[in-house]
Amino acid sequence: MKRHVYLAMKGLEEAREIFSKVWQGKMTSPEEICVEDALDRVTAEPVFAGISAPTYHSAAMDGIAVRAEDTYGTAEKNPGTLKIGDNAVWINTGQALPEGYNAVIMIEKIHQLDDANIEIMSPAYPWQNIRKVGEDIVATQLLLPQNHRIRSYDMGALISAGVFRIMVRKKPKAIIIPTGAELVGHKNIGDLRRIKKNQIIESNSITLSGLVREAQGEPAVFDITPDTEEDIRNALLKAVASDADLVIINAGSSAGSKDYTADIVAEIGKVLVHGVAMMPGKPTILGVIQGKPVIGIPGYTVSAVLSFEQFARPLLFGMQCLPPPKTRTIPVKPSRDMPSKLGTEEFIRVNIGKVGDRLIATPLPRSAGSVTTLTRAEGIIRIPPSSEGVTQAEEIDAELLVEDEELKNTIVVIGSHDITIDILADEARRGGRNIRVSSGNVGSLGGLMAIRKGICHIAGSHLLDTETGEYNVSYIRRYIKGVRVSLFHLALRDQGLIIQKNNLKGIKGIMDLTRDNIRFVNRQAGSGTRILLDYNLARSGIKPEAVKGYENEEFTHMSVAVDVLSGAADCGMAIYAAAKALDLDFIPMDREQYDLVIPTAFLDDPNIHAVLETIRSQEFRKRVSALGGYDPSESGKLVMEIGP
Amino acid sequence: MKRHVYLAMKGLEEAREIFSKVWQGKMTSPEEICVEDALDRVTAEPVFAGISAPTYHSAAMDGIAVRAEDTYGTAEKNPGTLKIGDNAVWINTGQALPEGYNAVIMIEKIHQLDDANIEIMSPAYPWQNIRKVGEDIVATQLLLPQNHRIRSYDMGALISAGVFRIMVRKKPKAIIIPTGAELVGHKNIGDLRRIKKNQIIESNSITLSGLVREAQGEPAVFDITPDTEEDIRNALLKAVASDADLVIINAGSSAGSKDYTADIVAEIGKVLVHGVAMMPGKPTILGVIQGKPVIGIPGYTVSAVLSFEQFARPLLFGMQCLPPPKTRTIPVKPSRDMPSKLGTEEFIRVNIGKVGDRLIATPLPRSAGSVTTLTRAEGIIRIPPSSEGVTQAEEIDAELLVEDEELKNTIVVIGSHDITIDILADEARRGGRNIRVSSGNVGSLGGLMAIRKGICHIAGSHLLDTETGEYNVSYIRRYIKGVRVSLFHLALRDQGLIIQKNNLKGIKGIMDLTRDNIRFVNRQAGSGTRILLDYNLARSGIKPEAVKGYENEEFTHMSVAVDVLSGAADCGMAIYAAAKALDLDFIPMDREQYDLVIPTAFLDDPNIHAVLETIRSQEFRKRVSALGGYDPSESGKLVMEIGP
Repeated sequence: MKRHVYLAMKGLEEAREIFSKVWQGKMTSPEEICVEDALDRVTAEPVFAGISAPTYHSAAMDGIAVRAEDTYGTAEKNPGTLKIGDNAVWINTGQALPEGYNAVIMIEKIHQLDDANIEIMSPAYPWQNIRKVGEDIVATQLLLPQNHRIRSYDMGALISAGVFRIMVRKKPKAIIIPTGAELVGHKNIGDLRRIKKNQIIESNSITLSGLVREAQGEPAVFDITPDTEEDIRNALLKAVASDADLVIINAGSSAGSKDYTADIVAEIGKVLVHGVAMMPGKPTILGVIQGKPVIGIPGYTVSAVLSFEQFARPLLFGMQCLPPPKTRTIPVKPSRDMPSKLGTEEFIRVNIGKVGDRLIATPLPRSAGSVTTLTRAEGIIRIPPSSEGVTQAEEIDAELLVEDEELKNTIVVIGSHDITIDILADEARRGGRNIRVSSGNVGSLGGLMAIRKGICHIAGSHLLDTETGEYNVSYIRRYIKGVRVSLFHLALRDQGLIIQKNNLKGIKGIMDLTRDNIRFVNRQAGSGTRILLDYNLARSGIKPEAVKGYENEEFTHMSVAVDVLSGAADCGMAIYAAAKALDLDFIPMDREQYDLVIPTAFLDDPNIHAVLETIRSQEFRKRVSALGGYDPSESGKLVMEIGP
Repeated sequence: MKRHVYLAMKGLEEAREIFSKVWQGKMTSPEEICVEDALDRVTAEPVFAGISAPTYHSAAMDGIAVRAEDTYGTAEKNPGTLKIGDNAVWINTGQALPEGYNAVIMIEKIHQLDDANIEIMSPAYPWQNIRKVGEDIVATQLLLPQNHRIRSYDMGALISAGVFRIMVRKKPKAIIIPTGAELVGHKNIGDLRRIKKNQIIESNSITLSGLVREAQGEPAVFDITPDTEEDIRNALLKAVASDADLVIINAGSSAGSKDYTADIVAEIGKVLVHGVAMMPGKPTILGVIQGKPVIGIPGYTVSAVLSFEQFARPLLFGMQCLPPPKTRTIPVKPSRDMPSKLGTEEFIRVNIGKVGDRLIATPLPRSAGSVTTLTRAEGIIRIPPSSEGVTQAEEIDAELLVEDEELKNTIVVIGSHDITIDILADEARRGGRNIRVSSGNVGSLGGLMAIRKGICHIAGSHLLDTETGEYNVSYIRRYIKGVRVSLFHLALRDQGLIIQKNNLKGIKGIMDLTRDNIRFVNRQAGSGTRILLDYNLARSGIKPEAVKGYENEEFTHMSVAVDVLSGAADCGMAIYAAAKALDLDFIPMDREQYDLVIPTAFLDDPNIHAVLETIRSQEFRKRVSALGGYDPSESGKLVMEIGP
């Protein structure tokens, strides 16, 4: 079987340099457009004024037009009188100065004696309060230099100066070629249920088109190309023969057996770089075919986005002579160590929220295949190739994916996963409130630790004290020291066994977990659900070793449900809502209490206030009830305050 | 004659508060659109995943799919062998896991013995290197909350999750009503020469449309409305009856006799604010008609822009639940004092450039009627109502109108005005160089002072030493102390008298300036042209008092030419190119030397280097020669170094 290697693997900076050097100074051709369509376009040549502005002498103030000579000698002690129609004329701002007049006296400085006569107390000097012809713009003057990005008021200035059409750089056209036999276009999907196993909805072309537009380019997407050598070759040749300024071929760029792209680019053009020491984004190809830049962009969405940002974005801006807008960065404090591989530039997506007076960054999963690690992130931490990572002790810059302002409004919820947190995240925004809830799933105990470390605003917890039957209180007393917290009720919820639809394996309860043909999927140690399971196993006299799959851990209820749905497991412990969401069967075992732990010092924060208001609202309770298996009737109730 | 007063003048912050309170939480209605059109749109409701992603178990790496059980017990010292097609299958990233398999071993970790047999050195564990169904997105999970602005990768996530159409907030529609009998639409102008006196090309609707678009709104412009009460009333009624979310009526908002807008708004709706203590922008009207927000925006372009930014922009963003992007600010050092009126919030447009290690801000003219004070500005300094201004001793924040990056590439040229500086400003950008030349016209001596104060990179100077006949050197020795400078030649240029076309008054030379029927226009004291004039007057034995208009000063050659063109003066001293630009007659008097003074320490700066390269280029010389009256054959030649 044919296998490849990365022929010309390069460091990120080196790759950028190699690629940018080839296209440096190469700009798109000019085109003529109407000025009213020119917002954000870039001048291809200097623009000179066609006429002067103003085009005539006009009043700069409301008042009367006079001849300055007629006003000389007047003073407060020696007022003069002017006669309307004789040596004075009413005039409004912008009106033309009548022939023979050469000054305007402001309305505030005159005294109207009657309909015809005006008294003045001070002389006017020639051209006072008059906007002279050409005062703003003189015909022939340079209005805008070449390579200038046009703003709203630039358009106004052009029109005022009699310039109605201008030459601008064409928006660079980027052709995007999606490749892969497994891809199906979303427009060809009538019914979501008919998507076949082995089919993936093609979505990268839409993400990449958006990125092209954000980089001031014009995207054009080819039909999905099967990943055969011939099809890819033909698509590339067709793309470079068109009016494209950049060709992006998506996927087929790594070293797999069907990854022909690099070979084909080498055959019909030149590969400059194959493989970049960045993560995600490593399987990037940078090349040139018939003088046109070609980028082979990896298939995983996160890799595709990062590879685009590093290589396509600067190119598209550069072709219009625009410097790419600078990435906004902000110093953050990691909530835990983030190790990284030496020699690779790593892009770690992070949640960022302001807790107390520190901006806390918590890493999201690093999987390049997970687009939600981008959609959920507030920022990206770049770890340079020379570093083995960052520790909690350091401060590091994060590139922002949201507005600064949003960070202040981000509420960091860490702890046990519950679906109602998603509803909270949405309901808190009702009525236009700009609150972002960023949630990390580390289990109940992890949440309490996060409160202790001061890296979150709220911890979600459902830790059963098996001795007292009470939830959370004893754990808080034991694990959170030195921080006074308030414990709020969120909901009662049903925990139980999630099993496959129609229960083909005939599971009836916890005793079945010891059966040889039952594969269990567990939750991670420290999670409330794990404690509940262990409690139930102990009560039933079952040893963990007797449960097949006990060591197989997932971090959320939904992951457990997905494992059951997909057949990776036969059964797992989770909440009813997870079973319902995926249409699985459920054997209820316990009704437990899920609470929110909030440092009491944060209760004055208007965002926290809004969260409490939200969970007490009827809208929230209605939506939570609709999930099934929840009783939110006391959500928002203060259980107690605990701590020093 | 009917006059008005500002009925409800308010401070800027108070006005903003009154206006924003009325519309708080009022959002545009939702509409359904395709996801691929959703970039930058705002979700009107939460979006949930339709299907899980991935939709099937797939390889996360290139390699072989195996059953984990078959690999147990293997180790480096105890390798195992797998048979392709029997208990191993080649698999590429993204491909579906074959039925019955549950792990993938990376290509890098295997040893291919032959076409059929694979050697492995370590065991796989179940689900290793596999992307499980729903690993990224689980059907029914919240993908995006309400009021979320959609980014490129959000679109990708939606499509992946089987969401192809979503509900977003409609873009708020802003109707713009231009008013004024003097206005003419640019599309109705066939020939610029046919613009009549008293006509102004309507340009604000284009500027305002651009600003609406930048605020994520949809502009719609009404036909130009004559400024009669009835027309304005009808236009406003038609606008509020339409599907507009905001109505902007441009001009007619001040207190002039034809400024009916406030009265009409009061008659058919309610005026909340009339007059805002801001400058420019004072004659703003904020009101409500039939429940819709109406803004009366002043006619001067700068006022219009600032009034829009303060009142319309936040409203448009707010209607889509978006916080307006924060204005970027940067601390700057004023190059001179900027006094301001107590009680008024003043917006002073400034040029900003990095000179040495300081960002120097130099105020542009404050005229609200001058749109070029916006187009030429790099920033705006806001002086609060409680302040009487800022002094050179202070540091103050400026709001940026350009990218930070551009400030570093801004070359500040201060001194004598010359048209070749405009050409330099454009030519320096040839080939995509991102250099901004910001020029201030304060005369030659002013330029030398600016070098001494360290507030500019380059001074343009043509100061004649009447004793030696040498240019600039003795002035530099006298006025610049402590700074070593390099003097570069820019061009020789013809100075003379600019007179009206066809010389109706029969001016033949400097002796005619003493004639009673000749009005002269002078340049300001300290300008090289003024020195040249005084030198010529003295040589001819003419006393300044004998020249009518000697005290009438302008700051640029072009202003002098405009004065002559418009009849404000019969004659003035200026360069030939200014006469030629405006098709005026010219009587040559002297050929003088115009030089650039640059602190020697700056010569290493790549931008200064680029400037010198530019003025030595053939393109530059060609364009300067084409102006007429210039000899640029030695441009860029080092005359000498002067100083310590």
